[in-house]
Amino acid sequence: MAVQVGIIGATGYAGLEIVRLLLRHPEVELAAVSSVSFAGKRLSEVYPSMAGCCDMELCDDKAVVERSQVVFASLPHGLSQGIAAACVEKGALFIDMGADFRLESEEDYAQWYGGEYTDKALHDMAVYAIPELFREKIKAAKLIANPGCYPTSVALGLAPLLKAGKIDPQNLVVDAKSGVTGAGRGLSQNTHFPDCNEAFGPYKVAAHRHTPEIEQVLSALAGGESRITFVPHLLPVNRGIISTIYAVPTQRMTAQELWELYKSFYRDECFVRVMPLGDAANLKNVRCSNFCDISLHPDQRAGRVIVVSTLDNMLKGAAGQAVQNMNLAMGFAETAGLELVPPAF
Amino acid sequence: MAVQVGIIGATGYAGLEIVRLLLRHPEVELAAVSSVSFAGKRLSEVYPSMAGCCDMELCDDKAVVERSQVVFASLPHGLSQGIAAACVEKGALFIDMGADFRLESEEDYAQWYGGEYTDKALHDMAVYAIPELFREKIKAAKLIANPGCYPTSVALGLAPLLKAGKIDPQNLVVDAKSGVTGAGRGLSQNTHFPDCNEAFGPYKVAAHRHTPEIEQVLSALAGGESRITFVPHLLPVNRGIISTIYAVPTQRMTAQELWELYKSFYRDECFVRVMPLGDAANLKNVRCSNFCDISLHPDQRAGRVIVVSTLDNMLKGAAGQAVQNMNLAMGFAETAGLELVPPAF
Amino acid sequence: MAVQVGIIGATGYAGLEIVRLLLRHPEVELAAVSSVSFAGKRLSEVYPSMAGCCDMELCDDKAVVERSQVVFASLPHGLSQGIAAACVEKGALFIDMGADFRLESEEDYAQWYGGEYTDKALHDMAVYAIPELFREKIKAAKLIANPGCYPTSVALGLAPLLKAGKIDPQNLVVDAKSGVTGAGRGLSQNTHFPDCNEAFGPYKVAAHRHTPEIEQVLSALAGGESRITFVPHLLPVNRGIISTIYAVPTQRMTAQELWELYKSFYRDECFVRVMPLGDAANLKNVRCSNFCDISLHPDQRAGRVIVVSTLDNMLKGAAGQAVQNMNLAMGFAETAGLELVPPAF
Amino acid sequence: MAVQVGIIGATGYAGLEIVRLLLRHPEVELAAVSSVSFAGKRLSEVYPSMAGCCDMELCDDKAVVERSQVVFASLPHGLSQGIAAACVEKGALFIDMGADFRLESEEDYAQWYGGEYTDKALHDMAVYAIPELFREKIKAAKLIANPGCYPTSVALGLAPLLKAGKIDPQNLVVDAKSGVTGAGRGLSQNTHFPDCNEAFGPYKVAAHRHTPEIEQVLSALAGGESRITFVPHLLPVNRGIISTIYAVPTQRMTAQELWELYKSFYRDECFVRVMPLGDAANLKNVRCSNFCDISLHPDQRAGRVIVVSTLDNMLKGAAGQAVQNMNLAMGFAETAGLELVPPAF
Repeated sequence: MAVQVGIIGATGYAGLEIVRLLLRHPEVELAAVSSVSFAGKRLSEVYPSMAGCCDMELCDDKAVVERSQVVFASLPHGLSQGIAAACVEKGALFIDMGADFRLESEEDYAQWYGGEYTDKALHDMAVYAIPELFREKIKAAKLIANPGCYPTSVALGLAPLLKAGKIDPQNLVVDAKSGVTGAGRGLSQNTHFPDCNEAFGPYKVAAHRHTPEIEQVLSALAGGESRITFVPHLLPVNRGIISTIYAVPTQRMTAQELWELYKSFYRDECFVRVMPLGDAANLKNVRCSNFCDISLHPDQRAGRVIVVSTLDNMLKGAAGQAVQNMNLAMGFAETAGLELVPPAF
Repeated sequence: MAVQVGIIGATGYAGLEIVRLLLRHPEVELAAVSSVSFAGKRLSEVYPSMAGCCDMELCDDKAVVERSQVVFASLPHGLSQGIAAACVEKGALFIDMGADFRLESEEDYAQWYGGEYTDKALHDMAVYAIPELFREKIKAAKLIANPGCYPTSVALGLAPLLKAGKIDPQNLVVDAKSGVTGAGRGLSQNTHFPDCNEAFGPYKVAAHRHTPEIEQVLSALAGGESRITFVPHLLPVNRGIISTIYAVPTQRMTAQELWELYKSFYRDECFVRVMPLGDAANLKNVRCSNFCDISLHPDQRAGRVIVVSTLDNMLKGAAGQAVQNMNLAMGFAETAGLELVPPAF
Repeated sequence: MAVQVGIIGATGYAGLEIVRLLLRHPEVELAAVSSVSFAGKRLSEVYPSMAGCCDMELCDDKAVVERSQVVFASLPHGLSQGIAAACVEKGALFIDMGADFRLESEEDYAQWYGGEYTDKALHDMAVYAIPELFREKIKAAKLIANPGCYPTSVALGLAPLLKAGKIDPQNLVVDAKSGVTGAGRGLSQNTHFPDCNEAFGPYKVAAHRHTPEIEQVLSALAGGESRITFVPHLLPVNRGIISTIYAVPTQRMTAQELWELYKSFYRDECFVRVMPLGDAANLKNVRCSNFCDISLHPDQRAGRVIVVSTLDNMLKGAAGQAVQNMNLAMGFAETAGLELVPPAF
Repeated sequence: MAVQVGIIGATGYAGLEIVRLLLRHPEVELAAVSSVSFAGKRLSEVYPSMAGCCDMELCDDKAVVERSQVVFASLPHGLSQGIAAACVEKGALFIDMGADFRLESEEDYAQWYGGEYTDKALHDMAVYAIPELFREKIKAAKLIANPGCYPTSVALGLAPLLKAGKIDPQNLVVDAKSGVTGAGRGLSQNTHFPDCNEAFGPYKVAAHRHTPEIEQVLSALAGGESRITFVPHLLPVNRGIISTIYAVPTQRMTAQELWELYKSFYRDECFVRVMPLGDAANLKNVRCSNFCDISLHPDQRAGRVIVVSTLDNMLKGAAGQAVQNMNLAMGFAETAGLELVPPAF
């Protein structure tokens, strides 16, 4: 019998995208979807795109937990801890789309998010889950912290170099650009069409909450403290993240050596594509898929290595990665429900 | 064993979209893909989005015909007749994405496209294939004329009213808007980004080649001659067609009666969604899916009925419908390979 | 000495656009700008684009009226009547950007907007002001009702045909498309970037408030009652309106005759451009200018005439036309402050 | 009498934008416009946006030189040298929009552009012309090398820091993003709407021709060799460039000190706006104006200073700066023809 799966916060962008994936997942059945704002309505009343695909009525969080063996929660930070505890208690897999379980350091969490860890045992249980980097841990996980979109793009982009000790982990610049779905469904002046269309600029310069998360995962990969300058920008497209990363090599590498390092590192991965030398990653090639594309560009003139890493912020950067994590933790095929061929246009 | 399928003109937009669908189709295997411009290259060299999904080498047309039991051809008009003949002779199903087999009247073809019908028996064989309207014929077809994107949106939008004799088939205005993929992959000043972005206007006003095709199918539905004014516009989005259709009812109908007529007509269809009264169709709800959404708007003040019909020009308007037609003609499940949940953003 | 001019509602889109025009107007000086939401802030704090151009502090409505010889008011409907009275009393020219003084029939106003006319003498004074059609009245006006964006595009598009009695005023279809600035600065789900980008559809089908205004002006031009079906659509661009208008000629006209009728009608107008036969109007050609472009397309097959009329909804459809009206009423050169060459991209 | 001005290459994007500015310039008269591709046509036939604004017939280069006291040339590189010589000889001011006179080092030119300097005296005469940095030289110039769009944004962004010796000129990362008009009017697959819309990525990574030009101007400002890593990206908007620049300070500076350095440096400049601390530059605020906006962001955590510099690539990055340079060289008011208030949407 199909595994019963529920989604808390199903009318947010990430939640809706999980629904969309699970509707075509061969191993699971949608048990319940919840929403605070739209409880009692059908999902297809909120999103007419879902008509005929998912006409389920939106219930409350409690009902989701009750009916599900796997629970995805897409909530504002601070709200996941209680639900996580309930899931763990009943033996359901809990996958948190938010930031509540991502940071190991409670101090960092307090500083960047302004909350505290009420149940430390729960936090010790949480697995920070980028499958390509932490697969074995994820297979055994009961509580999954699904990573942020920017951190995923940066960690996948730098892992081969950091693990091989080929770059200085303390001298990194990440210039990242995200499509507007990254800002969510909530209204704001910045995401009002006439303010956002034909516009472009950075935001939260060197002050974005993903900074400590990125440094945490890069430090783990480097085996030593990493320090970055991180500047995100808002891009007038719906989907996609691209990180242009500037690193300083610890030793000279040819383009070919660089490329081989990456090809070798990701040789068994089906969702990471290392592009041919000479090509540049572009978010259009990964949109609506679970791929992360990486292109490599040594700058011998200036003594830097440039890595460009791109993914769909809603899929490999959120819902897709969450389903991949579920697949691992539940023992399904890792690609189940994720065999999406990106449309070229 | 999986049915072997080939695509001629696989690097054009419609051809590529067929490849994308067939890669995930449960009943078929991609046997060969061809391209005149890129023969010898891999498909993923032309479209990096395809890397790891389809790295097949592009061959020539002949090889496609040889290796395939079903052949899709996406070619400039005038080039399909010879290939169709070869397929019919070897007993392969031929599905033409272009205009060569759509018009029953050779005179119309000559006037609007400027060619002639060299093999009339072949043309007699061709089935004009909108599944919701001509399903039984398609099941028996050997040679399928896949309809144009605009005609599909208009025919599905008006079929219930025309078949019931509720509107005047000679007094119709179709104001249609298409995304830029409708113009294809070829370069032109009009589709150069800075000329096309933040721009909007009609083109080929009352002179578009889809006009006789639309009138042909509407006449068939009405059981008498139809005459339309058809004005297409170029919309600065990648995908999607929307037709706003203005008709004059032959008798007064309430909104509810109108809606029930449509709900009843399409009650068994899985790809046509009649929207609730009060909602308006929007191409965002069908993008990247095989759905056609229809909304209904009586204008009692002015004595008109307004029907809005929208679909993804690349899918229900081209590749999706072609696969749906293949499914019917080959005896597969009609929805095989087409169970696409449209992303809301 | 320069004429002192004030703007009420200067942080709305239309208000801001008036500020932008007046800053470079040779005959006037900005006396005061007001805003309810941002009173006390500088305009350039709300709109950084204005830094160094207009750093004035936003005051309240009363201060604007006190300091100004001309007052523009860009307010939600229902709020202009009191301010208009104050201006008229002190002898200042009042230009209303909203709908409060546009409709002659209080009944229509009550039906479509839900308010009433408290001061009928004031309404009798108001001049509905499309300069190309009602220039002499505007020159003598004290209270100007600046027309809506859609009505301006339709009235300019049909005036030559209606005044010459060449089309049936009761058999008109207007399929209009507007850029998102038309919906104003206020936030809504429909204008949230990811909901609006790569989207397109009609709204308020056959139920938009501009309908009675359009019928009023068309009736005046026709010298008899006009009746239209009007369907607006939301276009994913910032600026621009285009109306594709379908009319039925009362007698056969050649394309050349049609074109000469328009060229002759608008021969002395500097803001209306009748395009060469064969060209189609596109909003990109009028964006950021005060032009209205009109193209003409007889459809002899179906017995219709198609007129395409496009303008920048913020300029000829709002702020530009308001300044043009001020110029007329104040005796300035009609083009003062409006000599804007549209950028081609 | 008005100064006679001509434009060579008036149908390219930069050329057209110069025409647009000069049509409203108080001191000059358009004497002639030329085009190789469209000679004999009217400018408004090529660009309908120009109808009624500039209906001049396009002539050849020679006619432009003959009739003009100032000549702007917007040509592919390698073609300006002969025309420059002719202008200098007849005493006309020559302003080159291309790269032929920008690089002091012929070696650099040969390496990056592949040509040679045929007339070295001419090159010695050329003034590299960013008004805010080299004003006095420009006033005396006869031959002006109008800078590239990227170099202008970077030079204005870094000048205060470099001139004050506050950053390391050899340790600079420039992550730049340009609107599609930067690629010009010529067609290419990359700028085909469906390939470019909803897409984003870098191009010519660490290999763009503007690299030596940027290093040349930064070295001049620093008084010593500068070395940069420069990565441009293609942004799906029509206009605008934004450079996010990462520098390493030679000494600790507070945010306030940083801001005061810039405010002081640019205190007399009318086209450079230093934004308030806390705000981030966005290209929407400068679009369609001659402004360059700069925002400042110290990253104390990582020991870097981030400068964001944005301008309209067609104006301050091309045509606007060229007109500003003409104004200086001809003794006009520096802002003549350039008093453009940027539209906020």
